[in-house]
Amino acid sequence: MSGTVQAKQMFHWPVRVYWEDTDAGGIVFYANYLKFFERARTEWLRSLGIGQRRLREGSGGMFVVVQTDVRYHRAARLDDALQVTACLSELRPASMTILQQTLLESEHTSTAPAELLCDGSIRIGWVDAATLKPAKIPKNILEVLEQ
Amino acid sequence: MSGTVQAKQMFHWPVRVYWEDTDAGGIVFYANYLKFFERARTEWLRSLGIGQRRLREGSGGMFVVVQTDVRYHRAARLDDALQVTACLSELRPASMTILQQTLLESEHTSTAPAELLCDGSIRIGWVDAATLKPAKIPKNILEVLEQ
Amino acid sequence: MSGTVQAKQMFHWPVRVYWEDTDAGGIVFYANYLKFFERARTEWLRSLGIGQRRLREGSGGMFVVVQTDVRYHRAARLDDALQVTACLSELRPASMTILQQTLLESEHTSTAPAELLCDGSIRIGWVDAATLKPAKIPKNILEVLEQ
Amino acid sequence: MSGTVQAKQMFHWPVRVYWEDTDAGGIVFYANYLKFFERARTEWLRSLGIGQRRLREGSGGMFVVVQTDVRYHRAARLDDALQVTACLSELRPASMTILQQTLLESEHTSTAPAELLCDGSIRIGWVDAATLKPAKIPKNILEVLEQ
Repeated sequence: MSGTVQAKQMFHWPVRVYWEDTDAGGIVFYANYLKFFERARTEWLRSLGIGQRRLREGSGGMFVVVQTDVRYHRAARLDDALQVTACLSELRPASMTILQQTLLESEHTSTAPAELLCDGSIRIGWVDAATLKPAKIPKNILEVLEQ
Repeated sequence: MSGTVQAKQMFHWPVRVYWEDTDAGGIVFYANYLKFFERARTEWLRSLGIGQRRLREGSGGMFVVVQTDVRYHRAARLDDALQVTACLSELRPASMTILQQTLLESEHTSTAPAELLCDGSIRIGWVDAATLKPAKIPKNILEVLEQ
Repeated sequence: MSGTVQAKQMFHWPVRVYWEDTDAGGIVFYANYLKFFERARTEWLRSLGIGQRRLREGSGGMFVVVQTDVRYHRAARLDDALQVTACLSELRPASMTILQQTLLESEHTSTAPAELLCDGSIRIGWVDAATLKPAKIPKNILEVLEQ
Repeated sequence: MSGTVQAKQMFHWPVRVYWEDTDAGGIVFYANYLKFFERARTEWLRSLGIGQRRLREGSGGMFVVVQTDVRYHRAARLDDALQVTACLSELRPASMTILQQTLLESEHTSTAPAELLCDGSIRIGWVDAATLKPAKIPKNILEVLEQ
């Protein structure tokens, strides 16, 4: 993660592991971390006043994922309490890249450091919802993200 | 299951159990049998010449599930080969009910009887895709289903 | 739902609708309400001091779903804020039945009545985790549930 | 993709897009391509005589995903017929990397070239199933993969 990103810019979202998230290996199915990442991105955007359904109904456009690079370090298990982070690392006219982590909360003390389970970068682009053709991110969205 | 339904009217669709289908109990996550049921319903409709995307684009309507009653008898595991059945049991102007089963194929011999894992009835209704309001099933679909 | 169940016994759990929950019909994929129901059951059990992973590691047993009867009345959409309820309706030595609802929170005022989206009854049984054979619910769990 | 990999070494697996795979954008939810990739890897291993459940029961170990790098070029839709490929690109004592693609089959003619929807590299490592600690891939598996 870039050293220039400051802690206050890091968005955190809690996620609990349920049966639906696990697989027969007894751990969270790796594809499901992409769901956790998306929940955190969605809540980060919502915290900035950006609701994706309203956006689509209003602008006719939507964000789609164009690249995901994820490394899995340790596995989460049923009932684990996780923290999922989102941090904007690059903003371009038609896409943005968000750095994300999934951390395991310590059971024993809230002062213990959380353990990194997986991290990755997710690039999302703006498209016209009807044609799925790439397009420029609407100006009012860009302005909110630039702050 | 109704005794009046004859074997030839029963549609079968093979499904293999992958990691994505299982949970930390080491077995298929019960909600995923609804996905298996739907794959079999979709292929049954396709075998009758009914493609759901084309249907929606052409008619502006779609089928939605309005009731699911499912009993789980035994659990499937990773790598199991399943047979999923679909059998129309009731056809009404705006909805239909399909009886479905998930069966475990015997590993040892294809002549051994398959074991019943779960069964249920799924009622689906026709709605206008834009308003989600119930509507009558299009005539050409009804005619195909009545045969 | 049974009129004898009092409001204070009804457990509520908030669920937000994300992209992962929806399908190409623009609504929540019906099988995913079973996931929402399970999250609420899990949190209801956790509120009673019953953690499912610890339970399994300690007792060698686990709950599995044996029957689900669900009616879908109205559809949830992306970004909707839901309330999922859980209410124990029947407790037997080796199984229990929980009545559950998914409600749509009003966007406009917290005093408006929530709208019923779907409801159902879920029966879960206790099994030995290794053999998956039905077994009696451990006494300490039964005692907690009986209160 | 490496130019040294020859076509005959490329494993293909057909996947059909169902409602469960799509999201409210009308397209396949991007995390689900990881499921499609895994189905193809599983069937590729099965074609080599490697069954993952039997492997785990016999050896006490299993493969887990440690890294996924995926680029999404075009979106699949409901009812699309896909081809998912798997091709071993690197084999090491405790891990391997598989290059994978999802291709859209042409509706009109089987001789038309399939369209690339997404591609990526998936690295999987071998772990002890009980401790989840990395370990060397069993010799008999390595020998099969080296051929």
